[in-house]
Amino acid sequence: MEKSIKQKFSENFKNIPPSFIREILNVADQQHIISFAGGLPNPCCFPSEQLAESAMRVLTEQGTSVLQYAGSQGLLPLREWIAQRYNNKYSLSVKPENIVITNGSQQTLDVISKMFIEKGDGVIVEKPTYLGAIQAMSGYLPQFLPVNLYDDGPDMDQIESYCWNEIPKFMYNIPNFQNPSGLCYNLESRKNLAELLKKYGLLLLEDDPYNEIRFEGDFLPPIFSMAPEHVFWSGSFSKMVAPGLRMGWVVLPDGLAPHFIKAKQSTDLHSNNLSQYILHDFFTHHNIDDHLKRVRVAYKEQCDAMKEMIRRYLPEEVKMTSPQGGMFLWLTLPEYLDSEELIGKCIHRGMAFVPGRSFFTTGEGNRNIRMNFSNSNPETIEKGMKILGEEMKKKVPKTLLNPPEKTEQALKGTSMIQHICL
Amino acid sequence: MEKSIKQKFSENFKNIPPSFIREILNVADQQHIISFAGGLPNPCCFPSEQLAESAMRVLTEQGTSVLQYAGSQGLLPLREWIAQRYNNKYSLSVKPENIVITNGSQQTLDVISKMFIEKGDGVIVEKPTYLGAIQAMSGYLPQFLPVNLYDDGPDMDQIESYCWNEIPKFMYNIPNFQNPSGLCYNLESRKNLAELLKKYGLLLLEDDPYNEIRFEGDFLPPIFSMAPEHVFWSGSFSKMVAPGLRMGWVVLPDGLAPHFIKAKQSTDLHSNNLSQYILHDFFTHHNIDDHLKRVRVAYKEQCDAMKEMIRRYLPEEVKMTSPQGGMFLWLTLPEYLDSEELIGKCIHRGMAFVPGRSFFTTGEGNRNIRMNFSNSNPETIEKGMKILGEEMKKKVPKTLLNPPEKTEQALKGTSMIQHICL
Repeated sequence: MEKSIKQKFSENFKNIPPSFIREILNVADQQHIISFAGGLPNPCCFPSEQLAESAMRVLTEQGTSVLQYAGSQGLLPLREWIAQRYNNKYSLSVKPENIVITNGSQQTLDVISKMFIEKGDGVIVEKPTYLGAIQAMSGYLPQFLPVNLYDDGPDMDQIESYCWNEIPKFMYNIPNFQNPSGLCYNLESRKNLAELLKKYGLLLLEDDPYNEIRFEGDFLPPIFSMAPEHVFWSGSFSKMVAPGLRMGWVVLPDGLAPHFIKAKQSTDLHSNNLSQYILHDFFTHHNIDDHLKRVRVAYKEQCDAMKEMIRRYLPEEVKMTSPQGGMFLWLTLPEYLDSEELIGKCIHRGMAFVPGRSFFTTGEGNRNIRMNFSNSNPETIEKGMKILGEEMKKKVPKTLLNPPEKTEQALKGTSMIQHICL
Repeated sequence: MEKSIKQKFSENFKNIPPSFIREILNVADQQHIISFAGGLPNPCCFPSEQLAESAMRVLTEQGTSVLQYAGSQGLLPLREWIAQRYNNKYSLSVKPENIVITNGSQQTLDVISKMFIEKGDGVIVEKPTYLGAIQAMSGYLPQFLPVNLYDDGPDMDQIESYCWNEIPKFMYNIPNFQNPSGLCYNLESRKNLAELLKKYGLLLLEDDPYNEIRFEGDFLPPIFSMAPEHVFWSGSFSKMVAPGLRMGWVVLPDGLAPHFIKAKQSTDLHSNNLSQYILHDFFTHHNIDDHLKRVRVAYKEQCDAMKEMIRRYLPEEVKMTSPQGGMFLWLTLPEYLDSEELIGKCIHRGMAFVPGRSFFTTGEGNRNIRMNFSNSNPETIEKGMKILGEEMKKKVPKTLLNPPEKTEQALKGTSMIQHICL
């Protein structure tokens, strides 16, 4: 019977790729292996006690409202809090009526895809891009239009060339500490992209879950702030507070919220009410910036440790990005290494990461690895990197064991990866 | 700009009807009107204190797990609890690995629709049917195939005739205390439908959110129990415990869970973790049957009150169903009344209901009304019905004010509505 049911699957559904990450996550959960695979925040930073207090308070004092069905747009005081935080941080004038609360930012990606994508529609994506976005959008059968991503932003000429004929339905990007690469657009790239949006009437889904997790450098304004009529700006409480609450939001251009709400209603009526009340109560009773300071200090330490261990244990030909925030860094391997072959070896030795191929819509990526540094302490990072290094070094060609001297110049490049193994 | 964005909307999205109910719910929330419109459980029955205790306990004792990302299938102990409850109640052998936890049963409808429906695919629906299901499915552009619903089940001949050419992708139904009609399939209808499923290889999405809310008569076995290889059996904690937790589940045929999980992952990664832990803790520490007993007593009282007030205040030509459970009853109006005209009058007088048209895929329903009885006490029900009755009576044609004597026979029928105004 199972087989005959499968024959009824829709073309849309069959187009969704499985999630390597989620499968790895299941393995990682069960076997207590050293995992740099999931996109997991560090549980040491979860404010469990404060959230327990908030849960107790809202259920005791407002149980009737918390436990009942609610409006689809989401809790107004929470939307007001989000608007105020953005407005203070970036001198914006975001209105709560343009915000919709979602069950995590993955839902924002699904709902925006549902609203816009018809079979064959062009959607510009960074190369590499977030696997979850590929999954969400694939269910609506787009044609992905990949653009190269460099250290400081995407290839603007390539984006513009995609707009010469039919304007793509939208572009999807993660300008802050991208998943998977850890890269961050500089100010100029943000401005240039905003100009392109306005010039071509191109829409942007600006996915910004790591916004608050900058541990180096200065905060940069969102592209939304430069072209608010063209941008759906997606945020998340998963990295700011905790992912188990499954809560995010989206800031929409004027007049779009009622349409987003209709699409969201059809998928789940409204977002989890308890999580909304708890978060609002938590923000009312505690200083989120104190909490975020702790998270940033911890993640910087972990990121630094991972960079150090990569330098110490991995072959020097392996290149890595140097994130200023977020939870990931990205490795580019020399030609003699294959990330999919490596993961098989490493899992057997109790260590996991995500091979790069999941993050490309083009079949590339077997020479890339995504590393999550936010869910492991420095000791675990060292143990894991030692394993990976040993597996990599087994593959080093004999000719490279005594390589000819390289010039420093030859090791630099303008590619998306920053070489810091020198 | 708003206009040019709207021009980019997908055909799928444009096909989703707005939710009259959710719009009414927003009005009803804000203005404290007497509302029989929402599908709201009675908040008096929410176990707020016990849930507060559970929230405190799980966040304090297992905060790290509760607040972290989790597997997409849902918390195993909660799936085990669901399986055991079903197995005890209906002598089944449901396995936890065939259950997936969802963010409410609306999500189950969306995910199943995503998995199966391509543009133009046939989907059999009851007439009338649940508005939320129409919304969820419409986003995937099905061709709805409506079947008449009678007091004890659907028109089997009509279902069979839809299977003569191409087998529809699936049938969607609510056999227990249907939303909106309050009707319940009898045992024979369940058996007959199960036979049809097997004969034609037809799939069924058996939506069963009101299963536990039977306040009269005996529990009847689900159609799933008679054809487990053909049925997706959807359940919900919204009516059993509280809807603000946004939590449901689906029992799938063997081998289907991994596919459902992939589709769900693409929409929101996984269900709210906190709600899952709280519910499991609540079931572990309290007897759900004691709780359900209170809910059933309350709802029966409210349903009885509504029937009584309908008899007392509404014109005798108005017919109603007589539910044995659930939260709704369904009115059929005489020709001189129009439910959409009435709602305009009643809202101005502080009383709301849902006109029937939202529940049909055929444009019918202006002579029907859905009444929610679970969210109002008998006094409020009386006040509301008085208003509705007054508005209805303004429309009674003069010729009917002194009607010729009717025979009892003429007022009975085999239609879907049960006349109890005699």
